[in-house]
Amino acid sequence: MKKVSSLTELGFADDVHRALFRPIQQAAPPSPTKRHTKISVIGAGNVGMAIAQTILTQDLTDELALVDAKPDKLRGEMLDLQHAAAFLPRTRILASPDYAVTVDSDICIITAGARQIPGETRLNLLQRNLSLFKEIVPPLARYSPGALLLVVSNPVDVLTYIAWKLSGFPPNRVIGSGTNLDSSRFRFLLADHLEVNAQDVQAYMVGEHGDSSVALWSSISVGGVPILSQFTKDVAAIEQGVLERIRKAVVDSAYEVIRLKGYTSWAIGYSVASLARSLLRDQHRIHPVSLLANGFYGIPDDREVFLSLPAQLGRSGILSVANIQLTEEEAGRLRRSADALWDLQQKLGL
Amino acid sequence: MKKVSSLTELGFADDVHRALFRPIQQAAPPSPTKRHTKISVIGAGNVGMAIAQTILTQDLTDELALVDAKPDKLRGEMLDLQHAAAFLPRTRILASPDYAVTVDSDICIITAGARQIPGETRLNLLQRNLSLFKEIVPPLARYSPGALLLVVSNPVDVLTYIAWKLSGFPPNRVIGSGTNLDSSRFRFLLADHLEVNAQDVQAYMVGEHGDSSVALWSSISVGGVPILSQFTKDVAAIEQGVLERIRKAVVDSAYEVIRLKGYTSWAIGYSVASLARSLLRDQHRIHPVSLLANGFYGIPDDREVFLSLPAQLGRSGILSVANIQLTEEEAGRLRRSADALWDLQQKLGL
Amino acid sequence: MKKVSSLTELGFADDVHRALFRPIQQAAPPSPTKRHTKISVIGAGNVGMAIAQTILTQDLTDELALVDAKPDKLRGEMLDLQHAAAFLPRTRILASPDYAVTVDSDICIITAGARQIPGETRLNLLQRNLSLFKEIVPPLARYSPGALLLVVSNPVDVLTYIAWKLSGFPPNRVIGSGTNLDSSRFRFLLADHLEVNAQDVQAYMVGEHGDSSVALWSSISVGGVPILSQFTKDVAAIEQGVLERIRKAVVDSAYEVIRLKGYTSWAIGYSVASLARSLLRDQHRIHPVSLLANGFYGIPDDREVFLSLPAQLGRSGILSVANIQLTEEEAGRLRRSADALWDLQQKLGL
Amino acid sequence: MKKVSSLTELGFADDVHRALFRPIQQAAPPSPTKRHTKISVIGAGNVGMAIAQTILTQDLTDELALVDAKPDKLRGEMLDLQHAAAFLPRTRILASPDYAVTVDSDICIITAGARQIPGETRLNLLQRNLSLFKEIVPPLARYSPGALLLVVSNPVDVLTYIAWKLSGFPPNRVIGSGTNLDSSRFRFLLADHLEVNAQDVQAYMVGEHGDSSVALWSSISVGGVPILSQFTKDVAAIEQGVLERIRKAVVDSAYEVIRLKGYTSWAIGYSVASLARSLLRDQHRIHPVSLLANGFYGIPDDREVFLSLPAQLGRSGILSVANIQLTEEEAGRLRRSADALWDLQQKLGL
Repeated sequence: MKKVSSLTELGFADDVHRALFRPIQQAAPPSPTKRHTKISVIGAGNVGMAIAQTILTQDLTDELALVDAKPDKLRGEMLDLQHAAAFLPRTRILASPDYAVTVDSDICIITAGARQIPGETRLNLLQRNLSLFKEIVPPLARYSPGALLLVVSNPVDVLTYIAWKLSGFPPNRVIGSGTNLDSSRFRFLLADHLEVNAQDVQAYMVGEHGDSSVALWSSISVGGVPILSQFTKDVAAIEQGVLERIRKAVVDSAYEVIRLKGYTSWAIGYSVASLARSLLRDQHRIHPVSLLANGFYGIPDDREVFLSLPAQLGRSGILSVANIQLTEEEAGRLRRSADALWDLQQKLGL
Repeated sequence: MKKVSSLTELGFADDVHRALFRPIQQAAPPSPTKRHTKISVIGAGNVGMAIAQTILTQDLTDELALVDAKPDKLRGEMLDLQHAAAFLPRTRILASPDYAVTVDSDICIITAGARQIPGETRLNLLQRNLSLFKEIVPPLARYSPGALLLVVSNPVDVLTYIAWKLSGFPPNRVIGSGTNLDSSRFRFLLADHLEVNAQDVQAYMVGEHGDSSVALWSSISVGGVPILSQFTKDVAAIEQGVLERIRKAVVDSAYEVIRLKGYTSWAIGYSVASLARSLLRDQHRIHPVSLLANGFYGIPDDREVFLSLPAQLGRSGILSVANIQLTEEEAGRLRRSADALWDLQQKLGL
Repeated sequence: MKKVSSLTELGFADDVHRALFRPIQQAAPPSPTKRHTKISVIGAGNVGMAIAQTILTQDLTDELALVDAKPDKLRGEMLDLQHAAAFLPRTRILASPDYAVTVDSDICIITAGARQIPGETRLNLLQRNLSLFKEIVPPLARYSPGALLLVVSNPVDVLTYIAWKLSGFPPNRVIGSGTNLDSSRFRFLLADHLEVNAQDVQAYMVGEHGDSSVALWSSISVGGVPILSQFTKDVAAIEQGVLERIRKAVVDSAYEVIRLKGYTSWAIGYSVASLARSLLRDQHRIHPVSLLANGFYGIPDDREVFLSLPAQLGRSGILSVANIQLTEEEAGRLRRSADALWDLQQKLGL
Repeated sequence: MKKVSSLTELGFADDVHRALFRPIQQAAPPSPTKRHTKISVIGAGNVGMAIAQTILTQDLTDELALVDAKPDKLRGEMLDLQHAAAFLPRTRILASPDYAVTVDSDICIITAGARQIPGETRLNLLQRNLSLFKEIVPPLARYSPGALLLVVSNPVDVLTYIAWKLSGFPPNRVIGSGTNLDSSRFRFLLADHLEVNAQDVQAYMVGEHGDSSVALWSSISVGGVPILSQFTKDVAAIEQGVLERIRKAVVDSAYEVIRLKGYTSWAIGYSVASLARSLLRDQHRIHPVSLLANGFYGIPDDREVFLSLPAQLGRSGILSVANIQLTEEEAGRLRRSADALWDLQQKLGL
């Protein structure tokens, strides 16, 4: 993609830079080993652009590269971000349909995905997404062999598995955004009800992103105080039916946004930017994300599936998985999700 | 608009808050005079939402209210922002088609506007916008009699005049986003060409927002060094034709974004958030914005028109207008814009 | 304290501002009801200045006022902060030995305190501090009748009680920094040992600030996972002796810093800035701070003492106190602290 | 310097981490090539600590290393910063009298310096500083051969020259903080007088840091408007005597702070943090800093001296020097400073 606008072509004196600036004597040339940070976002739709813009506003990276198959839309989005230069710290913003623009990324965030055709089976849709990922993941891995892959496209758990397989990366470097946003929605609902700051509420949704996710009642705490400890005698509050209705309200809140405005964008943008920050700045923070889950909570070692579990994130990706207390019922749901995903994956012919 | 989701309705114990928290003894009730800051955004389209989201990410306000005529879209956008609660400082986010939600705003940002119907005359479009503003501005002024009005809708100069007239506010409290973004685009083009940080480039576009804007060649400086001083002997660079081509490139870059992605959003979001910050935090920073311009640069005192000039912004709105050096040709263009706007305004029957 | 340096006296043209800027026509004069935020810091020693500088760096307020009895030191600190103007957002920085400079503060932070004379009894020192607070608190309350008082001086619990009595303020508006910093030290020790982010560790020190503080073992959680739940069978880890040694390590770490560098400054600066943010921006976050504690955990209603408990902080000060689970032993220590403080307070003759 | 406090020694179960966290299967070990950013500060006095703390608050680096000859003071400062962990993003903070702790730094900031003994000649003091730098610079260069050296110790221009010679680094990687802070003081004086935001004022002090610095009258602009252009007929304002008095007021304001509070700290902290940001985040911003100045403004090519000139800073250090307009008188003062520094350097026997 060529220079945004060549002032030279407009007749602007070519030697203005030379007139304004001079190098010092004996200066060494800029070293190619001088590292800066680079994030690439694949897919310039509503989700990809909300992520890119939030990363830019939060000043998380020195270079931001956008890739999309539609060159016009892509260039429009790039220009729209670049035009804000006077209001932001200096970030290099690049865009191209060619994956070469992503070279040497620290993180590649994949938001591209095929959309369901009315009447299409889930498996057929997945096959089309597999084809799409075959065009996306190998070039990303080739141009940035040391990058972290962060998959946002849905169905996120299977697509993170696919990205892992196609990339050949070690599994700690392939992460799905998973239930990180579901957990924020869960925390918002509780914080709003209790009139506390959502950052003081801990509450995890884990497992498969979407309808089969698992809300961990025992994980809910407010300001570090486990909410359950307050209710040993209050049967109603911990009644299974109530919990299930709250879990469904969390899941439905995503569908509600889609029904009302047509898509979700802002919340996923903030969610993924927060993951990018923990990864890039080596924050060792704990987020529920989709990761290689075999061996955890009774999922057999040979079931290579990705499911969301609370994990510590840092510069090397997944640093470790937190050991949470699951009831047998909760662990059972995780294992059933693992079985279903595994069966699906067998049909992909990867 | 009702509570996002009532956990109580789902059977969640109603007394959890009471179980978790207790007031101290002798505590005084919260005082209504305890001020927080509040920004309202009118219009939840691409521009309004980019502004709202940037304000939220930059943590500029304690309360954010959204107003739009479409309740579904509005509620979807509100929920999408609220779901990010766990990733952001606590900001109260409200939304309603009813202007009561804007009560006691510090700043009201108007982004709503009628869209041109193919074949419609400019005057007819303006009449429709006048009708729209008659529904928007009086309730805003009634609910927040001390607020600053910040108009973003286009044509911004006439609509800021209309907002001033309809609000009955003193003119220092009615501001149009004007050429603030055009100037950022101008600075980006120069910074990109010269490989410097756009924040070190000063360069103003003033006058009427859009095709008749005036680029101030003499205002361009890099790191405080006037670029003109480098070129006393370089005739080509300061040749009028070159300057005019650059000015046109700046104006065209907005059209280019619209042509490529269908609308502009990110850059105007950052631009308006930067104005909101200077106003709300009393920064006394200088921005080119649309303001009551009679009496400046030979515009007759009785020509009450709004045009962009570099002005100091603070908690009271427009604090003062910077005295810049205009060539006679530049001042002439300002006056011709003033005349054209004045004539147009006469036909509105305000 | 006069203007930092009068350029006019140096012969700088007096009318430069008039030459550079002009008001618009019909502008209303700035309204006195336009609120900004203001924080005052009493005491310009190491603690007061670390607080003031952190508040400035974090851009928490529009106006910062410093008060100290030593005019030279005070002016030196003010100038040193003002000289950084080009690197910071615009904040008005004032300083004076006269409390009039604090007028209309939102928060007054008291760091001034008498220092122990070798051989002096604790009661005698307290009497001297009482005399000092009689000079500080009434003028603060008079100049800012709606302010929040945040006491940092030691012994913080008694001095917060004294500030409450001398101010006549409702108790929710009088807060001691208490064990907020002790809790951060506690969390740091655990986070460092476990190689996690301290922001993912919850752990409270409560009760009396200093040697008699109470570490709440049951409050420790990592990423929302209660640490105790991992150790039902691990007797060693929860053995009382271990816990007590860790508590002592936390308390000692403050003494260690004092022994090594002569005083503490940075950590208390960040701690108090974080309290100021939660208060001023109405964050509803939970911090362990010193508050009027009668009626909690068996402390008799007529025992008006201030002790640290986890509380929700907002624009009205203490919003509510979190109901944490204490063992009988822990609650007993709280009550003994309350008794000791109460006895001490009786001797003050307030 | 050993681990802050070993909970293990206190009896805390050693296997808590293992109990809380588990790695995923097939995870690759953390790669040593995964870069983070690291800043080292040499000298833990008032200046060094103000710099370190500001860098920490502004979240500029992933790792911060402190070096000082006094191990107690050093450890006290490190602990005081670490205790704030719960209030800050995760930054690794190290401290040691051994330069090995600085290994792989991106920037090394030198604040250590010998203090003048009453009656000591300037040359003698410089000889002692040379001895000190011989202990500091070679190990820094050895442990971080690709680092940028940022010299803050005074006399900054000669010591930056010395650091250059002792390091063997190319001159673009050796920078003195020079007149960056003087320029901020200059801008503050003007902004305060004109009631504008100091960030909208451009004004440079260049040349030798201290009594012989040169204030560039022609460089003063407000919001991009050259102040001189307003005063073509106003002889008084640009009268040489006035300008010289303002320049002296800027220089004296540093002495005034030292006289009043005993040293300067906050402003130099912000100033150096702003340089570190422009360098590390490749901002291409223009700052007046001390750099190898031969060949500029008539300083002979063989006069290898460091003087402050406005320069673009980025990841490779000095990117280029801005071409500013100097009067013959101003250029003459620069050359005289260069001569004096050159003569002094000849006597050092480097």
